Amino acid sequence: MRDDLQFDRHGRLRHLLTIEGLPRQTLLDILNTAESFISVGEREVKKVPLLRGKTVVNLFFESSTRTRTTFEIAAKRLSADVINLAVAQSSTAKGETVLDTVHNLEAMHTELFVVRHRQSGAAHLIARHVPPHVHIVNAGDGQHAHPTQALLDMFTIRRHKGEFDKLRFAIVGDILHSRVARSQIHALTTLGAAEVRVIGPKTLLPTAVETLGVRAYTDMRAGLDGVDVVMMLRLQRERMTGALISSEQEYFNLYGLTQEKLEYARPDAIVMHPGPMNRGLEIDSAVADGPQAVILPQVTYGIGVRMAIMALIMGGTPATDARRPT
Amino acid sequence: MRDDLQFDRHGRLRHLLTIEGLPRQTLLDILNTAESFISVGEREVKKVPLLRGKTVVNLFFESSTRTRTTFEIAAKRLSADVINLAVAQSSTAKGETVLDTVHNLEAMHTELFVVRHRQSGAAHLIARHVPPHVHIVNAGDGQHAHPTQALLDMFTIRRHKGEFDKLRFAIVGDILHSRVARSQIHALTTLGAAEVRVIGPKTLLPTAVETLGVRAYTDMRAGLDGVDVVMMLRLQRERMTGALISSEQEYFNLYGLTQEKLEYARPDAIVMHPGPMNRGLEIDSAVADGPQAVILPQVTYGIGVRMAIMALIMGGTPATDARRPT
Amino acid sequence: MRDDLQFDRHGRLRHLLTIEGLPRQTLLDILNTAESFISVGEREVKKVPLLRGKTVVNLFFESSTRTRTTFEIAAKRLSADVINLAVAQSSTAKGETVLDTVHNLEAMHTELFVVRHRQSGAAHLIARHVPPHVHIVNAGDGQHAHPTQALLDMFTIRRHKGEFDKLRFAIVGDILHSRVARSQIHALTTLGAAEVRVIGPKTLLPTAVETLGVRAYTDMRAGLDGVDVVMMLRLQRERMTGALISSEQEYFNLYGLTQEKLEYARPDAIVMHPGPMNRGLEIDSAVADGPQAVILPQVTYGIGVRMAIMALIMGGTPATDARRPT
Repeated sequence: MRDDLQFDRHGRLRHLLTIEGLPRQTLLDILNTAESFISVGEREVKKVPLLRGKTVVNLFFESSTRTRTTFEIAAKRLSADVINLAVAQSSTAKGETVLDTVHNLEAMHTELFVVRHRQSGAAHLIARHVPPHVHIVNAGDGQHAHPTQALLDMFTIRRHKGEFDKLRFAIVGDILHSRVARSQIHALTTLGAAEVRVIGPKTLLPTAVETLGVRAYTDMRAGLDGVDVVMMLRLQRERMTGALISSEQEYFNLYGLTQEKLEYARPDAIVMHPGPMNRGLEIDSAVADGPQAVILPQVTYGIGVRMAIMALIMGGTPATDARRPT
Repeated sequence: MRDDLQFDRHGRLRHLLTIEGLPRQTLLDILNTAESFISVGEREVKKVPLLRGKTVVNLFFESSTRTRTTFEIAAKRLSADVINLAVAQSSTAKGETVLDTVHNLEAMHTELFVVRHRQSGAAHLIARHVPPHVHIVNAGDGQHAHPTQALLDMFTIRRHKGEFDKLRFAIVGDILHSRVARSQIHALTTLGAAEVRVIGPKTLLPTAVETLGVRAYTDMRAGLDGVDVVMMLRLQRERMTGALISSEQEYFNLYGLTQEKLEYARPDAIVMHPGPMNRGLEIDSAVADGPQAVILPQVTYGIGVRMAIMALIMGGTPATDARRPT
Repeated sequence: MRDDLQFDRHGRLRHLLTIEGLPRQTLLDILNTAESFISVGEREVKKVPLLRGKTVVNLFFESSTRTRTTFEIAAKRLSADVINLAVAQSSTAKGETVLDTVHNLEAMHTELFVVRHRQSGAAHLIARHVPPHVHIVNAGDGQHAHPTQALLDMFTIRRHKGEFDKLRFAIVGDILHSRVARSQIHALTTLGAAEVRVIGPKTLLPTAVETLGVRAYTDMRAGLDGVDVVMMLRLQRERMTGALISSEQEYFNLYGLTQEKLEYARPDAIVMHPGPMNRGLEIDSAVADGPQAVILPQVTYGIGVRMAIMALIMGGTPATDARRPT
């Protein structure tokens, strides 16, 4: 079902909260818009004036230097002013509610909030309470969604492997707790992937995962067999202390991506990872730095994709001349 | 008595340290200048070039994300470069004195320091030691003064209620420890308020508070009777642990602003709060979000008022054309 | 031996990692370029468009608000976008390697990394692994080098005392652990200083320090006798807890710079300190604030010198017209 919160009354994308429910055409619009922004990063002067005089607030209730940095760079390349708010150590500690923080920021006439929060649904909650001039981008909420990551992954796949309906995908790791996996699955199925598999130990697979339109594997070699794209997930080391997996060494043996296991995939398969990587845990360094990895291109595309998303939700599809250098 | 430190030899405002001693005309100049800056926040491109190529340093010895953010946004809308320094975790920890920190920053040819410090008098101390090209704005010093908050409050009052000499005011809460209350009282009496009342438990009222030109009430309903403006203060929860007030529940019963108590004020009275609010402690949510509250407009005006203050102390009254969009 | 890592194949300075091995002409080029940037800090509009649309990343694995601030101001005056990364609390805490962090940032098409790290050699390690479009400035690595500090010191000396071959120098304090001292010694000997002395307790002098071309003194008065420039070092208070020095009081008595000791130097000698100062430990306040101190001019020149370094390594010697106001 379409998440109406994400669109305004004219059917234009207003917030980006989740991939679930977004029409295929919306995903394609974002990917197509991103193409033109990727090139901004290759210029001498990496700046376009689209968001000049607008304020983007990085509203991070959960800290993540890397994700914050990608949004900060993307916003600055669009000429926005950027305010970084690490809210954990700030007003909420003083007893102010999340919505009071949000209402204060919108009263300052800021226009875009990039929200990261430990709790699933936080970005939706905020989006339901902001006035029309404020736009929300979900930069990760609990175990729910991480739509910009999924979109940069789709961009990477299309660049390196072409059309989705001809490709088979394997997502490997802690599917159960991963907002990245959830958003990737929605994006791949919406874009018509030929087949989506998820691979992981039984304790880290959601119970009825097949209802999402994927096939589950607990044997990694079987799961990788013949796929075109291997999408690794970051394993949160805190899972180790629980009863979910037995040891780092055993996890690596069973689900760490090694060259040997990778050879079950197609010879021209690409390897992706959202970063930061746990080398020697979910991925072997030889693979991470090997010829099939597109992990650093993912980072590069991430800037352009985030620029495209900000530009789209704040102004509709940007006019061609707006992307000329300032 | 006029605080001469705040004016240069030509009688122009050079620092904003305290409201106490500022002439009525200076307050009016700031409020009038703010009118034109408020509109900047309503434009598509929220930016004027007044402070282009100048550096504003947020020099926060006491952390406050919200106040820092308002100054950062205001400075960036004036096109200044902004440097955020949380000095608690920085050089003073290494044994450097406050004045060494300040002298270093001025040696870098930075022009404006927004200073927040736990100790009363810190902004004055710094202002006494900087060269002519450096301007200081006090963003709160101990229990002494918070002049930009008081000025944005005055702006809000004038916008919503008109002339001060026709209005009666009640400031409610921990008057004793509040730099906000102190600055509000000076501003209101200077601007000719018809009557200023302070309301709070005896333990939180200064001993000879009447010498400031206000009337003290320990009964909230009596204090609110017939006022036009209710100015709530934030209660520091750490007061709870001392002997100053008995319990949160009792405080709310006696001094929390509820709809029932608000009805003692005039029917068109407005309710203000400097934020962040302790909902259910000093103010009931029904009032905070109700039709008489102007708490979010305060935040909006706060940006414009701070822009006006920065522009005034750094360049005299800005020329009209300087406020045109860049 | 020349550190080839610092130059590209055309012999242009590409990174600034250490003074050791840099030719005299390179040092002079930097000092001469800095002359024109110093004047930018004296203008009304302190901004030149040289690095517009480029991203400078302050990549601080070791925290230092002051040093970070100087680079941030320098980069913003060159019109660069600046990203501040305090990596201690960030991805490396999540198990990502330094090189993964670096490769991610370069994949975002950022151009200049200002690196500070607790470990000697960190900036070199990073420089060996970045692609041609990325430039590294070492902002202090362990006990190894702090080249921008040494260069701003050289600039200060030339401004205040003239040619190096006519001057005698004394560096005082913890020579053994000081990256500042090491870089100063290399700069002074390369620039042809008439004499360089180091002064400190035996426990804080490197064993074969004379091989660096300096003369060692444990008696401060003998060491200061007749010098033109006194270069004080900051004493890390953590040395106190070890067996290296006996007490703060005794250290001050023996090696603290007082007016009495300073009189052994030439009457027109200047006193320098890289800051932040431990007043009453390595330097007496009367000297720090006295007429011979050039400690605040060092800070001022530091901005211009860092602007010059960034401009040089990112674009060769800047064209004259590029330094005109924007």
